[in-house]
Parts: sequence; C-alpha cells; structure tokens
Amino acid sequence: MALSSYSTINHHHLPAAAHSRLAPRATYRITATVEEPAIKSHNRSSSAINIPATLSNLLHLNTKHHTNSGTTTASVNNNPTLTLENFDRRTPTYSPKEDISSLCTEIHRSADWSHLLSPLHPWLRREILKYGEFSQSTYDAFDSNPFSQYGGSCLYGRHRLFEKIGLLRHGYDVTKYLYAMSHVDLPIWLERSLHAEAWSRDSNWMGYVAVSGDEESCRIGCRDIAVAWRGTVMPAEWLEDIQGKLETIESNNDSDIKVEHGFHSLYTSKNETTRYNKLSASEQVMNEIKRLVRFYQEKGEKVSITITGHSLGGALALLNAYEAASALPSVPVSVISFGAPRVGNEAFGDRLKELGVKVLRMVIKQDVVPKMPGILFNEGIKMVEKVTGTLEWVYTHVGVELGLNVRTSPYLKNCIDFAGFHNLEIYLHLVDGYMNSKSGFRCEAKRDVALINKASGMLREEIGIPPCWHQTANSGLMCNSYGRWVMPNRVPEDIPSPYRDGQMNYIVSAISVAVQEAAQAWLLQDLDAIHLQVVSPDDILMLERVTGNDDHEE
Amino acid sequence: MALSSYSTINHHHLPAAAHSRLAPRATYRITATVEEPAIKSHNRSSSAINIPATLSNLLHLNTKHHTNSGTTTASVNNNPTLTLENFDRRTPTYSPKEDISSLCTEIHRSADWSHLLSPLHPWLRREILKYGEFSQSTYDAFDSNPFSQYGGSCLYGRHRLFEKIGLLRHGYDVTKYLYAMSHVDLPIWLERSLHAEAWSRDSNWMGYVAVSGDEESCRIGCRDIAVAWRGTVMPAEWLEDIQGKLETIESNNDSDIKVEHGFHSLYTSKNETTRYNKLSASEQVMNEIKRLVRFYQEKGEKVSITITGHSLGGALALLNAYEAASALPSVPVSVISFGAPRVGNEAFGDRLKELGVKVLRMVIKQDVVPKMPGILFNEGIKMVEKVTGTLEWVYTHVGVELGLNVRTSPYLKNCIDFAGFHNLEIYLHLVDGYMNSKSGFRCEAKRDVALINKASGMLREEIGIPPCWHQTANSGLMCNSYGRWVMPNRVPEDIPSPYRDGQMNYIVSAISVAVQEAAQAWLLQDLDAIHLQVVSPDDILMLERVTGNDDHEE
Repeated sequence: MALSSYSTINHHHLPAAAHSRLAPRATYRITATVEEPAIKSHNRSSSAINIPATLSNLLHLNTKHHTNSGTTTASVNNNPTLTLENFDRRTPTYSPKEDISSLCTEIHRSADWSHLLSPLHPWLRREILKYGEFSQSTYDAFDSNPFSQYGGSCLYGRHRLFEKIGLLRHGYDVTKYLYAMSHVDLPIWLERSLHAEAWSRDSNWMGYVAVSGDEESCRIGCRDIAVAWRGTVMPAEWLEDIQGKLETIESNNDSDIKVEHGFHSLYTSKNETTRYNKLSASEQVMNEIKRLVRFYQEKGEKVSITITGHSLGGALALLNAYEAASALPSVPVSVISFGAPRVGNEAFGDRLKELGVKVLRMVIKQDVVPKMPGILFNEGIKMVEKVTGTLEWVYTHVGVELGLNVRTSPYLKNCIDFAGFHNLEIYLHLVDGYMNSKSGFRCEAKRDVALINKASGMLREEIGIPPCWHQTANSGLMCNSYGRWVMPNRVPEDIPSPYRDGQMNYIVSAISVAVQEAAQAWLLQDLDAIHLQVVSPDDILMLERVTGNDDHEE
Repeated sequence: MALSSYSTINHHHLPAAAHSRLAPRATYRITATVEEPAIKSHNRSSSAINIPATLSNLLHLNTKHHTNSGTTTASVNNNPTLTLENFDRRTPTYSPKEDISSLCTEIHRSADWSHLLSPLHPWLRREILKYGEFSQSTYDAFDSNPFSQYGGSCLYGRHRLFEKIGLLRHGYDVTKYLYAMSHVDLPIWLERSLHAEAWSRDSNWMGYVAVSGDEESCRIGCRDIAVAWRGTVMPAEWLEDIQGKLETIESNNDSDIKVEHGFHSLYTSKNETTRYNKLSASEQVMNEIKRLVRFYQEKGEKVSITITGHSLGGALALLNAYEAASALPSVPVSVISFGAPRVGNEAFGDRLKELGVKVLRMVIKQDVVPKMPGILFNEGIKMVEKVTGTLEWVYTHVGVELGLNVRTSPYLKNCIDFAGFHNLEIYLHLVDGYMNSKSGFRCEAKRDVALINKASGMLREEIGIPPCWHQTANSGLMCNSYGRWVMPNRVPEDIPSPYRDGQMNYIVSAISVAVQEAAQAWLLQDLDAIHLQVVSPDDILMLERVTGNDDHEE
C-alpha cells in the first residue's frame, strides 16, 4: 500500500427509521378506552433539543461549508450527512491495527515527516494517537486529591497502570516511574498532599518509561522505548510565571545552547534528603532508557526511543530527547508533543537537528501555550498579548508542526475557552478528525467524542455528555463497616514504596549482598565501605531483583 | 427512666499511644549499614498538619472554654479532651435504639416540646435525626444531572430508596412518591433534563410518603406516617425571588389565613396535560395519607403523621401539616423542620395551634433562610439586610424552635459561608452535638462528621475529608462494550413509569376491571362510560394492585 493512500472507508449511513430509538415516544393517559394520544406539542418545551435532527443539520451544514470551500477530499463527500449514529454507541472506538513494520525506517528515521502529514497518513495518525494516549494517561492516573495520603503520586502501581487506564491494547509494558522535585524554581503547579502522613513532601509523579511488547514490536518493526511526561492540565498557573530566562543546558561548559530555566530546573533538580528524588528526573529517565537500550541491543534487536508529552510535558520531552540523542547516537529518537511551549534558543534547535531528533508537534491554532515564551498573560488568562521585546525570536520551535483547528470539528462548541483549547483530549480528537491542512473533519473518525468532555466543557451540549465528567465516586471516600466515610487505603500494589516493617531487615541485608554483587559486575562509583548511597542505575536494577518493587522509589 | 435524664455515656479515652497509627513514621534511606534516620524536620513542611495534636488542642481549648462559662452539664466534663479517636473510623455512627413507646403520647401529643429541649432528651434527638435523615435522603437520591434522561426524578424506585440511601435501619417503607410542577410561580430552582427523551418536562420529584414497619411501630408506640419534602440545597436562587406575597390558603373562602404565594403555588399546582402532575403535590400527598390512615385505623392501630423537610421542604411540610390536620382531626400531626423559612401570617400560625399541629423547628443562628421572608438579599447573598417594612411581622414562625449555633462545633470551620450555614447535614451534625441552649458540643456525638462535607466545605481541613465529596463516578457515564462513554439506562425498577409495550394491553384491560371493582367498592366521582380520568385515590390503589408500579405516575 502506498504511503499517501487512505485505508478503505466503510460508511454506515443508517436510514431515518434507525433513529426511532431516539425519536420522541408517545406517553399514554390511562383511559378506559384503549387510547394512546401523542404527547402534546407544547409539552416538548423549546428548551428540549431533538438530538438527531439538530446534529444532523449541524453536521450537514458543516459539511456543506467544506464542500463549498472546494478543498474537501473525495473521502469526505461520500457520506456528506453524518448522523448521531456515526459516533454513537454501536461502533468500536478504533480500527484494526495494520502491520507497519515496513515503514519503521520511514517513520522513525527519515529526515522529515512532512510528506505524511497532508493528507495525514492513517498509520501515522494511529501512532500519534497511541503516544497521545500515553500522554493522556499521565493525567488520568494522577492522584490530584490533596486529601489523599498519596496526593501527587500515580493512582496505580506500574504493573497495573495500563490495565487500569484501558491502554493494554497498545501492547506496551511500563518499566519505570519517573519523579520530579516539587521544590524547583517553577510556579506552584505541583500537587502536594495535605495528609499528615503524605507519601512524599518533595516529589511528584511525572510519567513513565514503557517498552513495546513482542507483538507490538513486531508490528511496528522495532523495540520501541516510549517515555511519557506529565504536563499541566490548566496552563494559566505556571504559564504566567514562566520567566523566559535562558540558561545553558550543559552544566560544565559555556555552550551557546540554552533552554528555559524553569523547564530545565524541573528536569534536573534532585536532593539527597528526599525519598524519590535522590536522582533527578533526567537521571531517572536516562538510566532506564540506557538500561533498556543495552538490554535489547544485546539481544540484537532494533531499538527506537519515542518521547511524548503535552504542554509542560512536551517541553520535558524535548529536553529528554536532547539528552537521549546525545548519549545514544545509535538509536533513533523521536518526540511526539501536544501543545508544547518553546523550550530553547536557535542553537538548541540546530543541535537537535544535528543529533537527528525527529520532532512532530501537534499545535492547535487557538491554543496559546505553544506561543510561549513570547506572549504574556494579562489578568489571568483573559487577555493575551505579545511581548514587545524579542522573546519570541529568542525561543525557537523545532521539528514539524501538525496544525489543528478547533473550528473544523462539528462536535466542539464555538466558544472562547483557553483551557479547553489547550486540553489534550481536544488535541487527540482533532488529530482523529484531521485530513489535511485545508479540509474539515473526517467523517470516519472513530474516537469516542465523549472523551472531549473528560476535563473540559468543549463538547456540544446536544450530544448529551456532562462537562468535566472525569471524577471519582464520592471523591474517593468509601463507607467502612462502621458506617463512616473514610479515605480508604490503597491496595498494596498501588502504594508508592510501602513501608514494610517485617521486610525491612530482609531488604537491608539483601541490599548489602546485591551491592557487593553489583560492585563486582559493574563499576560502582559511589561505593563507600561505611555508607553507600544508592545512586547508580545498576543498584536500582539489583534492588528490583531483590524487592520486586523499584517502581516508585530511587 | 425520667424524661429529662440522659442515657448512660461511656467514654473511651484512649492513651496517647493509641495515636501511633497517626503519628509521623520514619522513612528510611537505603544505606549499607542498617540505619533508619527519622525524617528531617524541614521535610515536614509547615503546611502539613499534625492531625492528632492540632485537633486535640482545638477540642481541649473548646471544652475548657465551656467549663469556664460554668454552664456545662456534668456529662461533658467526664472526658474533657476529645481525641480524633472519638469520631474516627472505629465506632459505629449511632447508638442502639431504645423502646420509646411509653413516650409516644408525650412526644406526639403533649402541648409543647420545650421541656424535652434543654437539655435535649436523647430519645427526642434520635427521632429528630431520623426525620432529618428522611429529609436529607430527598437530596441524596435526587437526580440533578441535566444530561440524564431522568434529570429531576428520584434516582431509585421507591422500593429500593432506603436500601440504596442506607436508611433501612429506620424501619420504614416508602409507599408513594410525590411530584410537583416545575412551571409554577417560583424561581428556577427546579431541575429540568436537557435530554431529548426526558422522563418529564413538567415535574420534579419532591419527596415521598413512608410508613413505619411493624417493629419500628412497636418501638415508637404508633404507626407513623412520615412525609419527607425535598427543599433546595442552595438558597440564593429562590430566596432572592420570594415575593413575600400573601394569599389565602382556602381557595373557596375569604379566610384571613394567608400563606406565601410561591410556596402555595408549588404545593397546589397541577395540569391535566402532564404525566406526573394531573394531581397537585397537595392532592398526591393527602390521598396517600388518607389511604394509609384509613387502612391502619381500620386495623385498630394508633396512627401518627410526621412531616419533615429542610428549607423550602420545611415550608411545604407546614402547608401539608395544615391540610392533614384539617382533614384528619383524629390523628396527631407533627412537623420536624430544618432551616425553614416563614410560611404564613399570624392567623395561619394560630390556626395550626388550634388544629393541634406540633411544630419543632431546627434553626441555625447563622442561617439566613429562617429569617425569610423579612430580609432581603443584596448582590446575591453577599449582603443581607432587614426589610424596612413590616414583612417580618406579617410572616410568623410557628411552634417550638431548637436554636443551633455553628460556633459550638469544634469540627466546623470558623468561616462565613451562607450556603454552609443552611446545609442540612450541618443541621444534623449540630443536632447530634446539641446539649442545651447554653452549652457546647456533646463529646459523645457519634454521627459521622465526614457527612458535613457531603455538599459543603464546612468541615475543618485537619480532618482530611475533601469538600463537597458527594459525586457520582464519572458523572454517571459508563464505558460500554464498544469502548464508548455513555449515560447508561437505569435499571427498570428505577425508571419512573417505564413505557412497557408488551404490558400495555394487559394493563389497560386490567384497569377496566379494576375500575369496575373500585366503582362498586367505593364511590367513584369521575367515572365516565367512555373516558375515565384516573384521579381518585381509590383508582391509584387499584392500579397499584394491578400493576405494582404506581410509584411515579398519577
């Protein structure tokens, strides 16, 4: 199959009768004669919306508009009238996956993705959505409840994350969780637990490293190491405070490669006295990537690294890609980012190109975050204006941009909503519907539109999904056997490094043995006869072997 | 046992060691030597709160304060230092129930409850909380989701309500659901479904009639018919619009007994073309009360009627009591209301007294609603000021007031929160802790304090319960087998009057038979050979026998 062709599209245009389930039903008055008068028209108040009719009109109009503009591709007009059925309950939310191993080189190594973008190749779309869902999972699985003992951590242990979040179908395994310091020189966007026994006062869960399983590796043609970085749901808090202060990325030289101070600080901060950030996020992720690359390369496998993130997470992805490509020149490194701000200066961008890092940036036209640094927020996010200086010229975007537009989707409200324009689920929805830079929304887009409203109110009301519906039953409280509402303990497998009294001695002595083994097998740099800091990746590896629970703690 | 004495109180004062579960635990650094240094003090940030210490101080101070005031009863000072254990996870939330049948007459018929109020008799407290929980259930079970097909109805069928809401322990059975028109001359506080197939465009679920089962009837000494009226959670919306317009309560005379127009309109409106309000709320509840009274009186049982409601529901309770006492002079009628506004003029109050209606009004000093009509809201609810006219003298409160004060509870924030002051769960919490008009909070109060935050943020943060925690998982959406998030259909027993195609013929013919039976057994007033409107309570009775499903529909 040629790269630029679409896969076959099946249109299921249902006749009007198929809507009967949605049409008004007659109610009945109880009479002695058998009589079922239709409900009087004035009882259907004008505030009630006839979903099928309204949406049909809406979509019809929308499609007509695109037809008139003369730029729609043939695949759209086969079925000009979308109906509620097209996205309703009776279709799966994704297509069967093709074997794309033949494209591995092209997708991962070719100089430019541009020729796959207009029209967007369906195979590339599916890959973008896969990584986008990895990014989204860092929000969905984040415990943002300050009343939880584990506020700021991941809700689930790494072995259960994809099962719990519904991403098993991508065929990846999480191998490592990543943490970053919350005391860095970035504004207060990091969550902190108010609980007296909080799991950590210093760190936040920031994402994970995952690796493709055998089946998925076979399908995509290489062993893919995916890194997903958590960003921020609501940008205003931290965007207002981005200082636009550049600093050198290499600590030990006076390179002219510079990146934004706040992002760099978050990526590199660590503190010996903390529990989860004895290593910085940078060290954690690089240790794990190197371990995995070594492991699979020793088995003779082809390896790739794909780093993804939304918003701030997209900025971290770029810093991570810079470091990975520098350290592992033999491995192709890609970045799939969504609504990410600018990160560094032109020298940074040039160096990324030299390193062969491929960057695909999804950017919604109406989203202000990708314009940062370079604009200022006034009065919260009510006003946005350009900095009169040269900030936007100093900071440079890198890679290829896939430009999205909220106005192309017939499912989205025609509103001004800065948080909504930046919402990752809106990005994924628009990627799902993207055809090319000039056309409207794909008819055959299958992703569940209800997800749009997971944490926004951008979905049109006619579709009947409540805004910001993603919430826990009773905010996580449960009624215990005494009839009291309490915040239940997590199951052991979801507790970040539980304190196991009975196992403590065993673990400590096991570590002693493990460290000695490790010292022989590899060169340990911080070994001291009296006091050994566990800072090397090899120690972590050994710890994992001993305790089976390295997920949360360094 | 004398009426004014308290039941025995057992204090479980736990030694300090019992707090160990809540004290900070040492974390450990992994070292080659076995070493577990305590967490450094600066790691416990000052924003973290040591729950036991803080609350213990807090409660200690509070108790001391009351001791100094010299008014505390002996039962309080036995255990001056409350600890977190007193309300924490390991105690049931209510005491065993005593047989209070010997008090039935006193509680239900004596001229005045005043002598039971200071100190509040524990048996009366338990009865107040029972009816208060009936009132609260009308909020907890209300479907307020405008995206639900059944928005504005009860979430559960009447047979499952108490089971679902956790009130089976009171030993009552719901016999009838009550509906009121949402098109009445009251401001927009009634919920309406946006769904194209909404269960009703005209009516809202307003509460229910329940009757005590054999065991509970035995315990309290009579067959108790309880009516619970739903009110409003947030008063600002409708309070701003209360017109303070009096109108005559009897439609066919020029009596000087007058009540507030809006309340009366809600209570009495009906419309032939609607599905749930062919009968007004007044007719629905009176038909059911009369049916139950007749049924149990024919069996020779002693019957009482107790009507309860919070806020607007308390106003409806008073109108309902007036009507019930007028129609059924042989049956004692009581009202247990919470935060109810004034309803009528002095003549209305006098007439209620003549009728022997006993009213116990719970009033939180800081709640503005019981001051209505008679004050005005300026700029929303930010300012409250008295009407300069005579409105507050025109409208009269009736019955006995139990005055509550949010400042007596050590669990509540010291804040200004008008919605919080009016919240029914705050009322129930304060009743649970009430001793007498001068003293502070009962040490031995058992009700779960987490309930305070069910729909408010009034509970002190130290206790670790999220504000407004009462919410449905994913706003009611569920992921279907196609992977799509949808608003699921209700189970049949929770659907208001489901349209049952297959049963339609059967029901219609069964009605014909039933109506003929009914016509012989009782006198039917609206019988017509060709067209029979089912408007008589006897029809409803027959329908229930035939269909077992009269709950939701007239």
